[in-house]
Amino acid sequence: MVDLTNNIQLLLDQVVKYRGFSADTFHLLKFTKVEKGLIECEVKVEKELTNTYGVVHGGCIATILDGLGAFCFVSTQDEFQFGFTVNLNINYIAGASIGETIICKSEVDKITKSLAFIKLTAERKDGTLLSNASAIYKVPPQKPKSKL
Amino acid sequence: MVDLTNNIQLLLDQVVKYRGFSADTFHLLKFTKVEKGLIECEVKVEKELTNTYGVVHGGCIATILDGLGAFCFVSTQDEFQFGFTVNLNINYIAGASIGETIICKSEVDKITKSLAFIKLTAERKDGTLLSNASAIYKVPPQKPKSKL
Amino acid sequence: MVDLTNNIQLLLDQVVKYRGFSADTFHLLKFTKVEKGLIECEVKVEKELTNTYGVVHGGCIATILDGLGAFCFVSTQDEFQFGFTVNLNINYIAGASIGETIICKSEVDKITKSLAFIKLTAERKDGTLLSNASAIYKVPPQKPKSKL
Amino acid sequence: MVDLTNNIQLLLDQVVKYRGFSADTFHLLKFTKVEKGLIECEVKVEKELTNTYGVVHGGCIATILDGLGAFCFVSTQDEFQFGFTVNLNINYIAGASIGETIICKSEVDKITKSLAFIKLTAERKDGTLLSNASAIYKVPPQKPKSKL
Repeated sequence: MVDLTNNIQLLLDQVVKYRGFSADTFHLLKFTKVEKGLIECEVKVEKELTNTYGVVHGGCIATILDGLGAFCFVSTQDEFQFGFTVNLNINYIAGASIGETIICKSEVDKITKSLAFIKLTAERKDGTLLSNASAIYKVPPQKPKSKL
Repeated sequence: MVDLTNNIQLLLDQVVKYRGFSADTFHLLKFTKVEKGLIECEVKVEKELTNTYGVVHGGCIATILDGLGAFCFVSTQDEFQFGFTVNLNINYIAGASIGETIICKSEVDKITKSLAFIKLTAERKDGTLLSNASAIYKVPPQKPKSKL
Repeated sequence: MVDLTNNIQLLLDQVVKYRGFSADTFHLLKFTKVEKGLIECEVKVEKELTNTYGVVHGGCIATILDGLGAFCFVSTQDEFQFGFTVNLNINYIAGASIGETIICKSEVDKITKSLAFIKLTAERKDGTLLSNASAIYKVPPQKPKSKL
Repeated sequence: MVDLTNNIQLLLDQVVKYRGFSADTFHLLKFTKVEKGLIECEVKVEKELTNTYGVVHGGCIATILDGLGAFCFVSTQDEFQFGFTVNLNINYIAGASIGETIICKSEVDKITKSLAFIKLTAERKDGTLLSNASAIYKVPPQKPKSKL
């Protein structure tokens, strides 16, 4: 599992380095568990993740969970390709304020030939559920295997 | 409607000025229609809204639609208070690349005493549907009316 | 469009005749509009569609909308094959009681090679929204075309 | 827990006896675990629960899960009142055929003053996941407590 953890971390580094939408959020993200089809991380809530009430923004939770699910899918694939999100359904149950640490968990429910179903949660450190979510990703087309 | 447009724009300015999670996205957002329970806007896709494929990030679409729905709810309330997102369900149907402009539309389906149901879409300028979504917000408790 | 309406009606008759789960519901269903990718119907609420409060059952709305979306998908296909439901998201906004007539509408948002996205609503006759929903269906594999 | 199991079973009997929408499905349902906020059941797939492919109907899964979640909510309340479904989101991952037994599980994620969030799954006996779902119910208004 050392290699998998390493590879997922390298992928995260690339995402942060690209400086796209999720960079400011994902540079605050630390993987705490990386297994095939099961990834957990924690994120410290800084002001730049919050809404005007000082509570983590709903869009931020969506961004973390969508991204975490994408990493979780990648962890099951030989070729390290992201899937495309097809559906994301999130329930917002409680909030977290600046200074709190959020624990996010992703787990593959099922991967078919064409679709990956991933379940996701965000919790406080004490286990209070903040959000649960489910995401569906389209499995990218397989590259033809080399014949060498 | 001049006042409503003005008030919604002021609220957007506050959100951007707060420098929280949605600031970098919402400073790119321009309202194109503001009516009670019906708000439309456009957003130019810059690199900072995209994923590593150069396509607008799923979390970014979630952030725009969740935020737009929140503004749409506010536009129906005498007191300019945001509701709390309870559920956000998004389908990702197509993507938009750097340089494209996304048109986002929000419309109140129903507001009950406790919940607001809002439907949302994101489209390309040519009308191609990128995402549709529905959001449920918790109506904030009414402040007691002043007796003056 | 006469043929399409006719073919969709024949398919409904088969579904009712099969005597499976949706038969008791679908024998109450009348198509009022059948176009390619756009189907509307009405359903009279009888006691057998209701919960113990005498209000149309949430599972019944789900059954009608899931089924209507399936018909809507079929209406776009040369081969009259149903897709498999992948995701169904329903908001329950208001209820309808015994004796009321529900108007249900389905419209294709997009059909890709592998997935169909359909939006759905249920309303009272006066236009009051009861439910909105979105459904995703997996497009069934195409039968190879005959070479004759 | 004997009383709770008994009370939930009595409620199921009432639902079946009412002869509404879910009666034909729920008379096939057997509770296998009833705890406060955690209910499991099994359902044998008969033809009357299936679609024309002989696979359990998507609307049937929706009906079972919506109903099971409603029982799960009731199990946490002193007054045995159902909540109203606000949102139901279901992923359909695999199917079950006539003769198979489906295991359905429901668990309260959170109950606030106004809303109950319940997570739900349907599985085959061998643990294969058929569907996962989340449901939100509106908590019914509390009856004023008797002063006796």
